[in-house]
Amino acid sequence: MSKEITSRAADYSQWYNDLVIKGELADYSAVRGCMVIKPYGFALWENMRDTLDRMFKDTGHVNAYFPLFVPKSLFEAEEKNAEGFAKECAIVTHYRLKADPDKKGKLIVDTEAKLEEELIIRPTSEAIIWNTYKGWIQSYRDLPLLINQWANVVRWEMRTRLFLRTAEFLWQEGHTAHATKEEALEETIKMLDVYADFAENWMALPVIKGVKTANERFAGAEDTYCIEALMQDGKALQAGTSHFLGQNFAKAFDVKFSDKENKLEYVWATSWGVSTRLIGALVMAHSDDQGLILPPKIAPLQVVIVPIYKGDEQKTAIDKKVNEIIKELKALSIRVKYDDNDNARPGWKFAEYEMKGVPVRLAIGARDLEKNVVEIARRDTKEKNVVSLDGVAQYVNVLLGDIQQNMFNKAKLYRDEHITQANNWGEFEKLLDEKGGFIAAHWDGTAETEEAIKEKTKATIRCIPLDNQQEEGKCILTGNPSSQRVLFARAY
Amino acid sequence: MSKEITSRAADYSQWYNDLVIKGELADYSAVRGCMVIKPYGFALWENMRDTLDRMFKDTGHVNAYFPLFVPKSLFEAEEKNAEGFAKECAIVTHYRLKADPDKKGKLIVDTEAKLEEELIIRPTSEAIIWNTYKGWIQSYRDLPLLINQWANVVRWEMRTRLFLRTAEFLWQEGHTAHATKEEALEETIKMLDVYADFAENWMALPVIKGVKTANERFAGAEDTYCIEALMQDGKALQAGTSHFLGQNFAKAFDVKFSDKENKLEYVWATSWGVSTRLIGALVMAHSDDQGLILPPKIAPLQVVIVPIYKGDEQKTAIDKKVNEIIKELKALSIRVKYDDNDNARPGWKFAEYEMKGVPVRLAIGARDLEKNVVEIARRDTKEKNVVSLDGVAQYVNVLLGDIQQNMFNKAKLYRDEHITQANNWGEFEKLLDEKGGFIAAHWDGTAETEEAIKEKTKATIRCIPLDNQQEEGKCILTGNPSSQRVLFARAY
Repeated sequence: MSKEITSRAADYSQWYNDLVIKGELADYSAVRGCMVIKPYGFALWENMRDTLDRMFKDTGHVNAYFPLFVPKSLFEAEEKNAEGFAKECAIVTHYRLKADPDKKGKLIVDTEAKLEEELIIRPTSEAIIWNTYKGWIQSYRDLPLLINQWANVVRWEMRTRLFLRTAEFLWQEGHTAHATKEEALEETIKMLDVYADFAENWMALPVIKGVKTANERFAGAEDTYCIEALMQDGKALQAGTSHFLGQNFAKAFDVKFSDKENKLEYVWATSWGVSTRLIGALVMAHSDDQGLILPPKIAPLQVVIVPIYKGDEQKTAIDKKVNEIIKELKALSIRVKYDDNDNARPGWKFAEYEMKGVPVRLAIGARDLEKNVVEIARRDTKEKNVVSLDGVAQYVNVLLGDIQQNMFNKAKLYRDEHITQANNWGEFEKLLDEKGGFIAAHWDGTAETEEAIKEKTKATIRCIPLDNQQEEGKCILTGNPSSQRVLFARAY
Repeated sequence: MSKEITSRAADYSQWYNDLVIKGELADYSAVRGCMVIKPYGFALWENMRDTLDRMFKDTGHVNAYFPLFVPKSLFEAEEKNAEGFAKECAIVTHYRLKADPDKKGKLIVDTEAKLEEELIIRPTSEAIIWNTYKGWIQSYRDLPLLINQWANVVRWEMRTRLFLRTAEFLWQEGHTAHATKEEALEETIKMLDVYADFAENWMALPVIKGVKTANERFAGAEDTYCIEALMQDGKALQAGTSHFLGQNFAKAFDVKFSDKENKLEYVWATSWGVSTRLIGALVMAHSDDQGLILPPKIAPLQVVIVPIYKGDEQKTAIDKKVNEIIKELKALSIRVKYDDNDNARPGWKFAEYEMKGVPVRLAIGARDLEKNVVEIARRDTKEKNVVSLDGVAQYVNVLLGDIQQNMFNKAKLYRDEHITQANNWGEFEKLLDEKGGFIAAHWDGTAETEEAIKEKTKATIRCIPLDNQQEEGKCILTGNPSSQRVLFARAY
């Protein structure tokens, strides 16, 4: 094989990096903490983005674009939000370079071109958007505003990981404005459901819908809802969040509307987002030691066809058949590539497309042609089958559906097996260290206890599931009374 | 009418701003020189972007994403490029805010969080991309790289105009790498042709393909090709550029490849881009004193249907018919909206959709229903026709094609009538001041003369047309010999 991958057992973290780099999803860049999303990774993101975008539009949302910069005075207007992001802000202070008088050909910052007010590069856009909404909302007739934007944001993280935590990342952020609390709450949950639908039915990633504790809430939100997924190393990953912002931003930016009785009221808000981080989740939830395993519905390439031949005559005959197959596959909207590059041998190609997680591989040789068959390998289980060339496109189409379902089932089984109850501190620590996954345990409801547990174990409360069962119990740390279990985990 | 628009004759510049703001394409923001692209404007941009994206992919390009930031040391590596953009760079110098000890609830830049090396917000991405390509290119087998990115860029312009010139704007930038000069030149022209195709066949905007003089070249390019369009006030607008970069960036970033003979050679490069500026061109080329006129192929809404009724009974009957029409229109992939909002009267709606440039309006009342007819108004000519409801969808479909063609023809007629020859300085000045448009005149080929003409008249050489006729003559300013006319104009 051309590219070695560290095994999960040997070093899970290195395995992940190997997959991202060698699977050609992304690359490091010359900028601290920023990555380059490579064409293959970006094609995956395009499929995810386009699917989500369709779902947003189907639920009545429209796209817009707001400035990259937030003037400091706006940034600090909603104090909790500002405080939450202040420590990781990239700040623009100057707007011009000039020739360095001491070094020919070099440039220095022109200190005369200092901004009167510093500009923050958006870590999230509530401030700039709500400052804009102030001009757009006067009456209840202007509501709701259901706006989304696809954008880059910057959060100056100290420890970065490709896709999972980068200084700059791509995301979408929905920002909606409503006349009533009920409507805003309904929107918050609706978008959480959209995210869960997307994660489960497109990414084959089972998620738990829940609400965050106060400690883990988005800075400036009244409530943060989330979808939480489980990775193969037993760590959780927050895959998307939907925030009920109450009237916090409306108050900070003085956004009022006159209701039907002509009374002035503050507007209710939500915001919700998912990011390129989802690609990290996808990689870690499904892949194996041979490389990526991508769900057919969003895989850039769904099928690759590799010819096995000696000499031009065999090649010509195979080409002819393959072109027929490609035409049939394309008629079914299947994304297919014929790799007849003769610089690489079939075995090398097999390994390469396994690495890249292409769901289905067809290998076809001269003998296969004679017998009117083709070898079909599925990436998820690595099963191979020799099937008739008659109706092969339909076979592949069904197989892609099977793979999608199987990937979800497998991830769900693993996830379900990794939700474990702990009834005392000893059990809790042991589960965390030996099994991982979500641990359902009683907690006394205080931020102090949550913080203490985090300090002792690095585990956090991932969420209180939406459909949570009520059950009397005692907090695993303090022994104080509790009315329900919450889900703890170590997390990305 | 609800919204007054300044007429072109009264104040062209104000007319343009009125259209952008009142047509709801964009809004001013709290950030100096940055705009908010509103949902209607963004839907227009999405149609433009998606069309271009398809054209790029059809010509073998793939998308990727590179960092927003360029470390200063990389930025200055290609000296001409750096010099060209140094004066308009937004510069990140710090990465943290902290609480202001003197003002509760306020934040200040944390001076301890100063970056060791300043980061430039990309004004264009050659530097960061070629620094990345260095790691991706070793052999001729790695070439060509045909990569595009859709991104925001920042150029700190002192005088800004919505869409035409903003500090932050959205664009695409293609960056390709090739083994030979010929291949890079071919790519440069190929993408120029893609831009011209898009401008003419989608935006209904006739353009002249040409090459820039050295003065007007992209900083760091060997040659800059461009498409130039003409606005209704007689000023030209550069609508897209495609640069042949030679080996300048390969040399600056030391990007070499081993060719088939195993010899190390520098890589050849192109870059090409169009931006949200195109929306400004679209507005100014086609619109009138009643509002926007959008070409059907990229209009967010192609058809609006307005019911005219008294009472629920009439409304119900109209609704039923309209739903049938909508179904038929949608079957033809026509973007249609039924505006039955009863808060506004038909006359108000008519003016509103004229303002927004919706190509076709259907108005249908109870009497029309009885007669099995509908009134169809086209936005471009404002003609109205009463046509039979039988086959109305097909009628509209043909009409949309007519409008698209008519808009192009009209703009082309105007453009062609505004390419005028000037044979001496007097004619040149008179044409510039009294007629405007492109002026075809002899020029002695020196940068000094070009600069002198610009200082005297504000006219620049827009381009030397690709198919330019060779003709002996004398420079309009210096009288020195010239072998061809070039196109001058005042420009946006």
